[in-house]
Amino acid sequence: MKLSSSGHVRKYASVNYLKNEPKKPDVKTAIPGPKTLALTEKLGKIQNTGAINFFVNYEKSIGNYIVDVDDNVLLDVFTQISSIPLGYNHPRFHDVMKNSQNLSHFINRPALGIFPSADWPDKLERALLSIAPKGLKHVTTMACGACSNEQAFKLMFTAYQRRKRGEPTEEEKESCVYNKEPGCPDLVILGFDGAFHGRSMGCLNVTHTKWIHKMDYPHMDWPCAAFPKLKYPLEENVEENKQEEARCLEDVRRKIDEYNARGKFVAGLIVEPIQGEGGDNSASADFFCQVQAICKEKGVFFHVDEVQTGGGSTGTIWQHEQWNLPHPPDVVTFSKKMLTGGFYATDELLPREAYRIFNTWMGDPTKVLLLEEMVKVIKDENLLSQVKVTGEYLRSNLNELQVNLDKLW
Amino acid sequence: MKLSSSGHVRKYASVNYLKNEPKKPDVKTAIPGPKTLALTEKLGKIQNTGAINFFVNYEKSIGNYIVDVDDNVLLDVFTQISSIPLGYNHPRFHDVMKNSQNLSHFINRPALGIFPSADWPDKLERALLSIAPKGLKHVTTMACGACSNEQAFKLMFTAYQRRKRGEPTEEEKESCVYNKEPGCPDLVILGFDGAFHGRSMGCLNVTHTKWIHKMDYPHMDWPCAAFPKLKYPLEENVEENKQEEARCLEDVRRKIDEYNARGKFVAGLIVEPIQGEGGDNSASADFFCQVQAICKEKGVFFHVDEVQTGGGSTGTIWQHEQWNLPHPPDVVTFSKKMLTGGFYATDELLPREAYRIFNTWMGDPTKVLLLEEMVKVIKDENLLSQVKVTGEYLRSNLNELQVNLDKLW
Repeated sequence: MKLSSSGHVRKYASVNYLKNEPKKPDVKTAIPGPKTLALTEKLGKIQNTGAINFFVNYEKSIGNYIVDVDDNVLLDVFTQISSIPLGYNHPRFHDVMKNSQNLSHFINRPALGIFPSADWPDKLERALLSIAPKGLKHVTTMACGACSNEQAFKLMFTAYQRRKRGEPTEEEKESCVYNKEPGCPDLVILGFDGAFHGRSMGCLNVTHTKWIHKMDYPHMDWPCAAFPKLKYPLEENVEENKQEEARCLEDVRRKIDEYNARGKFVAGLIVEPIQGEGGDNSASADFFCQVQAICKEKGVFFHVDEVQTGGGSTGTIWQHEQWNLPHPPDVVTFSKKMLTGGFYATDELLPREAYRIFNTWMGDPTKVLLLEEMVKVIKDENLLSQVKVTGEYLRSNLNELQVNLDKLW
Repeated sequence: MKLSSSGHVRKYASVNYLKNEPKKPDVKTAIPGPKTLALTEKLGKIQNTGAINFFVNYEKSIGNYIVDVDDNVLLDVFTQISSIPLGYNHPRFHDVMKNSQNLSHFINRPALGIFPSADWPDKLERALLSIAPKGLKHVTTMACGACSNEQAFKLMFTAYQRRKRGEPTEEEKESCVYNKEPGCPDLVILGFDGAFHGRSMGCLNVTHTKWIHKMDYPHMDWPCAAFPKLKYPLEENVEENKQEEARCLEDVRRKIDEYNARGKFVAGLIVEPIQGEGGDNSASADFFCQVQAICKEKGVFFHVDEVQTGGGSTGTIWQHEQWNLPHPPDVVTFSKKMLTGGFYATDELLPREAYRIFNTWMGDPTKVLLLEEMVKVIKDENLLSQVKVTGEYLRSNLNELQVNLDKLW
C-alpha cells in the first residue's frame, strides 16, 4: 500500500512511518528461531501451541515488516490472518491512543446494547456508515466474524418466519424455549463447497474446508452447493468458465428446491466474495448477480460474508461493490481488517424486538475508535487507488511468471 | 466492594479513588432523560435500540457510581451485565493505559494462536494461571463467553470421541467436511432448565430462559434437565430442598440414560453455579458434587460455566471453589468480569492437534493486560474478604426485610 498512483509517497503522517520501514527482509536465524522455540515450550505447558509460527516483537514491527523475537525481519503478506489494515504501529493509531479523551473507552468496557456512551451514534456514523455498502443503512457491531455470521443467520431466520406468519404465536414462544417446533422451525442456510464462515456451531454448518475444524462435532443437515472452480488465465478460458459457473448456479437452484421440498426451508444463502481458507477461489460479478437473482426468486435472503474481503484490500471497501448488484445484499458481515466484527442489514432484516440480537458487550468501542481513524487514513492517503495500482502490478507480474511456469519447475 | 473487614478503606491507590466517589445517588431528570432520548432517536436510525436503558458519561462515572448523559448519578448494581470488575475508572486501570510499554498491544492486534508476543506466556501465567481453579493447568483465551462455551463443547465432543475410538479414521475426516456421520456424530450436551449459556447457535441449544433468544432459530434436540428451585430461607426448608435437589439429580440421570439409549450420546453437561438470566437460582454444594459424580459414572464431561460467577463477586474467584469437588471440573469457561473470554481445561480435554480450537484473534491481549492488573488489585486490596463481609451484610439485611415482607406489600 505504499505507492501512490503518481509513484510518490503522500504528504501525511505515513511519510515518516514509511521512512522508518526496513528496506528489505533480514533473516538471521532459522525460523522458528531459538527464542521462539524456548517461548513455545513455555506456552506449551499452558495450551496447545501447534499453530504457533513464531513469537513477535510488536514494538519493533513496522509497516509491512514484522519482526520476530529472534530479530528476523520479514515482509508480512499474511498480516495476522488478513486482520491488520494499515501495517504495524501506524502513527495515526498511536495518535488515537495518545488522545486522553479516548482513555475511558479502554478501561470502562460498556454493554453497548444498553449503556452506550454519548459519542456512540456519531462513531458508528463516521466509522461504519460512512463506508456502508450502497443501500444498507443499518449496522450493529459484534466481537468477531463468527459471531457476526451467527447473528446474520438469526436475522435471516426471523425475517423468513416473519414473512411467513406475521406476528409469532404463543405456541411458538413457548415451544422454542425447549428447542421444539413450531418455535424452532427446521430452517437452513445454504453455503458453498470450500467455504469458510467461522468455527462456532452455527457457522460450522456452512463451513466446508478441512476436517480439523469440524470433526467430532454434531452438525445440522444444511445444503452445500458447488462453488465455481475457474481456470486461469481467465481471458483464455471464457467459455469453459461460463459453463462452470452455470453448473454451480444450477446446483444452487437444485439444492434450494430439494431442501424446500423436504420441509427444510432455505431461509438464507451465505457466500464469500473470494473464498479464502478454501483456496482463494472467486467467480465473476455475473455469477454473484445471478446467485442473488435466484435468491430473490426463491425467497431466500442473500448474505455476503466480507469478513476477509472487507476493509479495502480488493480496491473497494467491500468486494461485492465490484459486482454491481441490482439490489443490496440483505446482510453483509465483517471483521478482521475492519477491527470490529458486525453486520450491515436492510430494513427488512432489522430486528423488531429489543434483545433479539444481543449479547453482553455487542462489540468493543475501542476497536471502533481505531476503525474511525483507519477510515480517515484510507481516505487521506487515497489508499484504495493505491491498492488498485499495487494489485495490478502484482497481478500482471504473476501473470508473466505463470507463462514461464513450465520452464521454472 | 468498599468496606474492609475492619471497616476502613485500605491504603492503596483506591483510597483517593473512593474519596472521589459520590456520596449517594443524585437523580436530576426522569430516566431516560432528555439527552438519552435524543441520542436514542439518533441511534434508532442505525440499529434497534429497544434495549437501551440510557447513554452514559463514562468519563464522569467512578467506582460504584454510573453517571448518565443527563447528569443523573446512580449507584450501579448492574455493572454492565455483571462485567465491570473494579468499578468505573479504577486508577490502576488508568496506570496500565499510561504505561507506554503497553501501547503496541492496543494498536497491533495479534492472531494470538500463531503470532503471540514474547510476554504472552508470562501474561497468561500472571493473569490467568495464578487464579486457575484447583487442578486445572491449561488455559486458552477467547473473545467472549458464548465463544468460550462453544469451544468447550468442541473440546468435550472431541475428548468423548477420542475415548471411544482413539485415532480418527479417514472416513471420519472426509465425511465431516459435509456435515455427515461418522465424522459428525450425533453427540449432545446436557443443560438445565432456566440456564443461559449464550446466544450463538451451539450455546442456544442449552439456553432455556426466554423466547426472545431462541424463537425462529433451528435448534438441536439436546437434553434439558430440571434445575433445583429451592425455598428460602434455606435454614427453614432443609428437608424440602433436599428432596427438590434429589428430584433434579434423578432427572439428570434419567435424561443421560434416555439420550444415550436413543444413540444421541451425552458427551458433556454444562451448568452455571448460579443461574443468572434464568432467575438467580442456585443449589447446594452437595448438589453440584453429585452432578459431577453422575457425570463420572456415565462418562460425561463436566463443564462449569463461570461466565457470570467468575472473577470474585461470590467471595472466591470461582464460585465452584465453594463446592469442594473431589475432582476438578473438566472445563471451566469465563468472560465478563474476567475481561477476556476463555476456558480452563484438564489434560484430557486439551486439544491434540494444531488449529483444532482456533480462530483469528483467540482473544485480545489488551484485555489480559487489564486482567493482570485486576488480579493484583484483588490481592493488594484483599477484595475477596471484603466481598464476603459486604455480601454477608447485604444477605442478612435482605433476610430481615424478607421476614417483614408481608407487611410491606
